[in-house]
Amino acid sequence: MMDYPLLLTNFMQHAAKYYPGKEIVSVYATGTFRYTYADWYKRTSQLAGALRAFGLQKGDRVASFSLNNHRHLELYFGVPCMGGVLHTLNIRLSVEHLVYIINHAEDRILFIDEDVYFLIEPFKDQLKTVELYVILSQSGVMPQTTLSPVVLYDDWIKGYPEDYDFPVDRDENDPCLICYTSATTGDPKGVVYSHRGLVLHSFSTGFTMGIQEKDCALHIVPMFHANAWGAPFVCTLCGMKQVLPGRQILDMASLCRIIAEEKVTFSCGVPTIWIMLHNYLEQGGAHDFSCVNNFFSGGSALPRHLIESFEKKYGVILSQGYGATETSPVVTLSIPKSYMQKLGTDEKIDIRTTAGLPVPGLDVKLISLETGKEARMDGKDMGEILVRGPWIAGEYYKNPQQSAVTFKDRWFHTGDIGIMNPEGYLTLVDRTKDLIKSAGEWISSIDLENAIMGFSGVLEAAVISLPDVKWQERPLACVVPRPEAAKTITKEDIQNYLKDKVAKWWIPDEIVFLQELPKTSVGKFDKKKLRATVLPEVLKNRDKA
Amino acid sequence: MMDYPLLLTNFMQHAAKYYPGKEIVSVYATGTFRYTYADWYKRTSQLAGALRAFGLQKGDRVASFSLNNHRHLELYFGVPCMGGVLHTLNIRLSVEHLVYIINHAEDRILFIDEDVYFLIEPFKDQLKTVELYVILSQSGVMPQTTLSPVVLYDDWIKGYPEDYDFPVDRDENDPCLICYTSATTGDPKGVVYSHRGLVLHSFSTGFTMGIQEKDCALHIVPMFHANAWGAPFVCTLCGMKQVLPGRQILDMASLCRIIAEEKVTFSCGVPTIWIMLHNYLEQGGAHDFSCVNNFFSGGSALPRHLIESFEKKYGVILSQGYGATETSPVVTLSIPKSYMQKLGTDEKIDIRTTAGLPVPGLDVKLISLETGKEARMDGKDMGEILVRGPWIAGEYYKNPQQSAVTFKDRWFHTGDIGIMNPEGYLTLVDRTKDLIKSAGEWISSIDLENAIMGFSGVLEAAVISLPDVKWQERPLACVVPRPEAAKTITKEDIQNYLKDKVAKWWIPDEIVFLQELPKTSVGKFDKKKLRATVLPEVLKNRDKA
Repeated sequence: MMDYPLLLTNFMQHAAKYYPGKEIVSVYATGTFRYTYADWYKRTSQLAGALRAFGLQKGDRVASFSLNNHRHLELYFGVPCMGGVLHTLNIRLSVEHLVYIINHAEDRILFIDEDVYFLIEPFKDQLKTVELYVILSQSGVMPQTTLSPVVLYDDWIKGYPEDYDFPVDRDENDPCLICYTSATTGDPKGVVYSHRGLVLHSFSTGFTMGIQEKDCALHIVPMFHANAWGAPFVCTLCGMKQVLPGRQILDMASLCRIIAEEKVTFSCGVPTIWIMLHNYLEQGGAHDFSCVNNFFSGGSALPRHLIESFEKKYGVILSQGYGATETSPVVTLSIPKSYMQKLGTDEKIDIRTTAGLPVPGLDVKLISLETGKEARMDGKDMGEILVRGPWIAGEYYKNPQQSAVTFKDRWFHTGDIGIMNPEGYLTLVDRTKDLIKSAGEWISSIDLENAIMGFSGVLEAAVISLPDVKWQERPLACVVPRPEAAKTITKEDIQNYLKDKVAKWWIPDEIVFLQELPKTSVGKFDKKKLRATVLPEVLKNRDKA
Repeated sequence: MMDYPLLLTNFMQHAAKYYPGKEIVSVYATGTFRYTYADWYKRTSQLAGALRAFGLQKGDRVASFSLNNHRHLELYFGVPCMGGVLHTLNIRLSVEHLVYIINHAEDRILFIDEDVYFLIEPFKDQLKTVELYVILSQSGVMPQTTLSPVVLYDDWIKGYPEDYDFPVDRDENDPCLICYTSATTGDPKGVVYSHRGLVLHSFSTGFTMGIQEKDCALHIVPMFHANAWGAPFVCTLCGMKQVLPGRQILDMASLCRIIAEEKVTFSCGVPTIWIMLHNYLEQGGAHDFSCVNNFFSGGSALPRHLIESFEKKYGVILSQGYGATETSPVVTLSIPKSYMQKLGTDEKIDIRTTAGLPVPGLDVKLISLETGKEARMDGKDMGEILVRGPWIAGEYYKNPQQSAVTFKDRWFHTGDIGIMNPEGYLTLVDRTKDLIKSAGEWISSIDLENAIMGFSGVLEAAVISLPDVKWQERPLACVVPRPEAAKTITKEDIQNYLKDKVAKWWIPDEIVFLQELPKTSVGKFDKKKLRATVLPEVLKNRDKA
């Protein structure tokens, strides 16, 4: 066969040539912007021309600091297809981490959403490699900013030809994007994605999800979270209508309006979004989901009751996926097999409560914590999840020390503990470091959190380990009550509720009520922070008692 | 990203691990055989063990001479995944070509269907490299044969372990199958498929066709025709039920029974099959197509009236594909885009009358015969179809001379003439060598054939070029009448019928009636043979007149 490389360029040009009239929709606070793949390709070509004129060399990094909008989608293809590498910055990172990763990646240009440029200003002097700031502006007005030199994106790209000669004779292993993991310990670690990896990830996930050109995607998951889970690439691959909601992702009424007006058929998002959306619906929020086929959730496990309520009360299928920044990110998807379709609704929800089945193209195995051998697919045997495949990272960017720990024996060691049932569906038990060992038995902090969150008076719950002389470790529950229950809820209410939900020795002796839970930049419970703040208080009080 | 190879091994093991209970069904004259992917994997492992014990080295070729059955599906994966190369022999090839390609490929083992072993016997002494004959036998009885040494497949593989240690640390560009083109001129040319090429072909075509694990495939297209168009690989990739119909493909009543009983949802086949099936239906043949989503046709263009009749009378969607042995084979698929769904039935049939839209992952362009430049996508500008991509051959096996002609400038020059409409749908006009140039204007032999086959009294028609002093070339139509019209049909009937169907100067002056048309080993009209037999007769008669 020909030595022909797998490049995102093929996706972009396929869409522009065969689906030139299909729409890309970008929603701003000031109104909705629409254009076609043909126009998008022209502007992406102009962007490539501007990058070349700037002097961007093959492999050079430029960074985006932006929400989901049409200019960000131009960067997603224009930068990698002309030869550069797009570094997507999580806008919720701490200043310390932002400075570290921009300097570590040696980003030459920063493309900044006009809504958030002021977040960069305070630390601009610490950025050692940035030569130019480009404002992604829908208003067309240059903000009063101390960033310098600074230009407006549209001014910067205009004047370049609308058909760039994107190279196709290049290495498919060339880097195209880079994303840093949200470090819970140590410095953030960079994961470099290749054209080859993202092309294959798109084919496998698109095929498995059964999405098609006729679908319409709403990109809720931020484009700075592991390539927006690859969705913009799959959608472009098949010439699908794409909707980019910008800041509207935190406004559930707007989100529901967009879904209904644009006839959205699927969307990907973290549990935080689905919990917010569910609260909005429970309060009688207006919505019309008749066009929706499927919502996909990932990042952390969804509570079962949420999946159930979405399906039974609002007629929407919520499926889950599992993955990590290191895995491009999709590893598994919780789609029932055809012969499971005859199961009852509750049994199908059981399946969608799991993290799902590995997608084709990957190898997944579980290594028992006890024996070090491969765990059985019996729905009971626990093990650390190991993954390998063409869209799985083999190292961290310029970080041999962490790479050696995480990518041993040519497998990615996820640090997640799972069990796999005989059908191959994976259930996440915990992070290796969050699992609680009480009197020699494992307690899954995630399972216990989900059980607690099943109680009507509870909004959110996180469980961490409490050192214990007698039992080695005991679970400590940090609970945020629902507003209406805040004044009345007691520790005993929760303990009583759990009695027939979990094993007796899982029931936490210590329950702390908080007004909110600290979250990481990707919306997960920040247990590191809980251990640093709540745990000392509890230990102090226990010592007093 | 990890350096992890794309191998068919992943498809096989994914199906065995995650869909162990899904069925593979193989239909024999003596009854239907059923087993599961789990059992198939065990036997495929045993086959690999037997091949290793035989001494098959990496890259060594073995050949299959067989219809579609479950042992052939074991060969499809067992041979390539253990490191060998499967050479699929077209059982309809001439002795001369069979001897040539077996010797040219240096096949070490011949796996032969028990129904056709006697076809090999007459020329066994001319096979220079075959060390062993293995009979694929469902009866379990060794036939009385002069082939030697000879064993029964099931006896040969039994006793080997049911879990072979298939290598995964190997080059994805390793050859896995080889197929020779049915040569219309010169010796047959070998096309070597790689693991990488077939994995990517599977992802792109499966994704585009929208097929899923819930589907059920009936493999009508022979497994010796360009990898059965890749269908066995796509189906295994998603753990789909597969039905292998063996000799039943020429018996329309059996085929219809299998479709209904096994709940077949899609099938791929050449026009000959769909014409036969249509005749069977028109004669009131029993059928139940309620389970069928789509039939796919390829190899040569389907007459429009057939697509129309299948849809309007029998409720079945017939879609077309275009490709060649050199292209793994799918290049285009005639699936309407989502916004075309609102079109009327006839307009959608217009779309499915084309060869279709290029599948993602390939580059397709048309080079004008007149200007040598890229043809416009305007539905009028004709050009030779050039293709490149990861599942397109870059050369012929050990044939530098033909390779240099066909694979110039890193594009595959198909020798087919096409036009592309503004939506990207390709219509085949003709083979470069079959196009007729009359008074400086092109006549498509294919279009003219389809017009003639639209006449009720005509079963089949092939058009070739007739040298002409005045017009340079004129079309000569070779027509097979339907049995009921054989005695009454006249040249004038057809000429009158064509009057409002084609341009006046397209209407053939010469029409010859034949009892049947010669066909190539892949079922296409053999125009080479018509030129050698019919043309001299016509010229002789013309000279006399």
